[in-house]
Amino acid sequence: MVEKAVIDRIESELSKFMDSEVEFLLKIGSYILSSGGKRLRPVLVLTFAKLLRGENHDRDYPLAVAMEYLHTASLLHDDVVDGADTRRGKPSANRVFGNDTVVLTGDYMYANALYLFSVYGDIDMIKNVSDSVKKMAEGQLLELKKIGDIDITYDEYFQILEGKTAVLFGSCCYVGTALGGGSQKQKESAYRYGLNIGLAFQLIDDYLDYASTEEKLGKPVCNDLREGKITYPLLSVLDQLTEEEKEFVKKVIRDINPSQEKINRVKQIVQEKGGMTKTIEKARQLIDNAIGELENFPDNEYLKKLEELAKFIVEREF
Amino acid sequence: MVEKAVIDRIESELSKFMDSEVEFLLKIGSYILSSGGKRLRPVLVLTFAKLLRGENHDRDYPLAVAMEYLHTASLLHDDVVDGADTRRGKPSANRVFGNDTVVLTGDYMYANALYLFSVYGDIDMIKNVSDSVKKMAEGQLLELKKIGDIDITYDEYFQILEGKTAVLFGSCCYVGTALGGGSQKQKESAYRYGLNIGLAFQLIDDYLDYASTEEKLGKPVCNDLREGKITYPLLSVLDQLTEEEKEFVKKVIRDINPSQEKINRVKQIVQEKGGMTKTIEKARQLIDNAIGELENFPDNEYLKKLEELAKFIVEREF
Repeated sequence: MVEKAVIDRIESELSKFMDSEVEFLLKIGSYILSSGGKRLRPVLVLTFAKLLRGENHDRDYPLAVAMEYLHTASLLHDDVVDGADTRRGKPSANRVFGNDTVVLTGDYMYANALYLFSVYGDIDMIKNVSDSVKKMAEGQLLELKKIGDIDITYDEYFQILEGKTAVLFGSCCYVGTALGGGSQKQKESAYRYGLNIGLAFQLIDDYLDYASTEEKLGKPVCNDLREGKITYPLLSVLDQLTEEEKEFVKKVIRDINPSQEKINRVKQIVQEKGGMTKTIEKARQLIDNAIGELENFPDNEYLKKLEELAKFIVEREF
Repeated sequence: MVEKAVIDRIESELSKFMDSEVEFLLKIGSYILSSGGKRLRPVLVLTFAKLLRGENHDRDYPLAVAMEYLHTASLLHDDVVDGADTRRGKPSANRVFGNDTVVLTGDYMYANALYLFSVYGDIDMIKNVSDSVKKMAEGQLLELKKIGDIDITYDEYFQILEGKTAVLFGSCCYVGTALGGGSQKQKESAYRYGLNIGLAFQLIDDYLDYASTEEKLGKPVCNDLREGKITYPLLSVLDQLTEEEKEFVKKVIRDINPSQEKINRVKQIVQEKGGMTKTIEKARQLIDNAIGELENFPDNEYLKKLEELAKFIVEREF
């Protein structure tokens, strides 16, 4: 969907702007950045800029990679928070380099991203981006706080989702639109496009955690449930549960190491009550919202790409 | 040295701008911020602004507290990196709330600080400040990397010192001068004043780690040595050691749990070769440099305060 030349340039700029004098940091940075990933965030920045001015300028790239640094910093800290062992099929950076090093490398990447914005961006972009980084930390803290809590509300769930993925997607689209010279109204529409596809992206992740296989996911299914996290498939059926079922679910999410049998029982309840279908429906609705925001932009080949991208997110696994 | 009214206003603004919707975060923030501290960084911002325009404006405060948030974020991550048990005589936040929560709260504080700069500051300040945050992470990473390494150079040692304390002091003075409407030359002088007092501050910390008592320090003396860190008192005498002494020191800094006897022997070597005196001399020289930078500013009561502050740093414990 994205041309190889664009991805190649992103990869090369990702190395270029990690230009610390501290060699050790370059080594860690290179380990993490070479772990791959779809570079969806830089692609969003670049595509919105092209949507408005038909081409990318040199100045677009440092900001596109700055958004990937923010994402990477957040993954690094997330691995420390979760005590993760692997990331994208490789041993996680915290296992290879230690938590201490990984926390500081994340800090460096956050700071480097903001520094790039101070050189190549403007104050309005920094306001939007730093607000998103605040919300990312808030969302992850709220997620920690809500572990094992069956009384989590939709508002709280969506605040967690926004922080985990959606606000950074939103900022990517905002920054790209700003680079392309878009109006305030267009910047806000772009932000909402990103927010909505980010929410849908995370909903599909939550869906796959119930529906997929360990082989496809690269991690055990129902991982969220094992960690005591209530996600949309379960949240959407909570009000249909009998008292007995609710008590059962409550015990499972508070169990530090629930048995496979118990996990399967919850999975079955979710499926029977229609939680899987509801999740897909909600994701599709968010994608429709996202595509609706594109009405405020010129109808050209890049608009088509952004429509496709939105649809791809929700259709990626079925 | 600083009026109570100023400190009170700083305290009140510190709470005011921690305005997350996530209550849990407010609780952690309040725990950490109420641990005290001299609020030296906000005071530097406010004093440089007054040096140039004779008074503080409302806009100065959010940026003064933003600098304290950056400092606090760095302490939080530092506690995780060091696995600290206490901070300022209280159980450290990582012990009370867990590493995961503390990493994320630090991230929130970093982002909130940059956000405040995007609202109340300007792009030039953000460039200076984000560059300092990069250097802070780099300095701490370099310090980790150099543990147990007897071949550490002066350049590396001072890069670590800059990152640990000095660059943030520098940025405080830079931001204060910018708020006061100072010229580019004045902003750079102010930055160097802060950098120099920060280096001197850290040198005195390193001196006290050898010279003070456990009672005064609130932690065991020669803690740096125990952790395998070579600081200025030892570094400054390394080239005067016999081969045998050097081998001995090498063993001690690589020892995970060196005996008190061995620690005392290194301490004795440092004292005999004049490492303590050299450290004080170096700190005094840096303070002279700092005071020299003040020549570029109007000679008023605030200039006197900044001179006093610089002298106080190096004379604080003897």
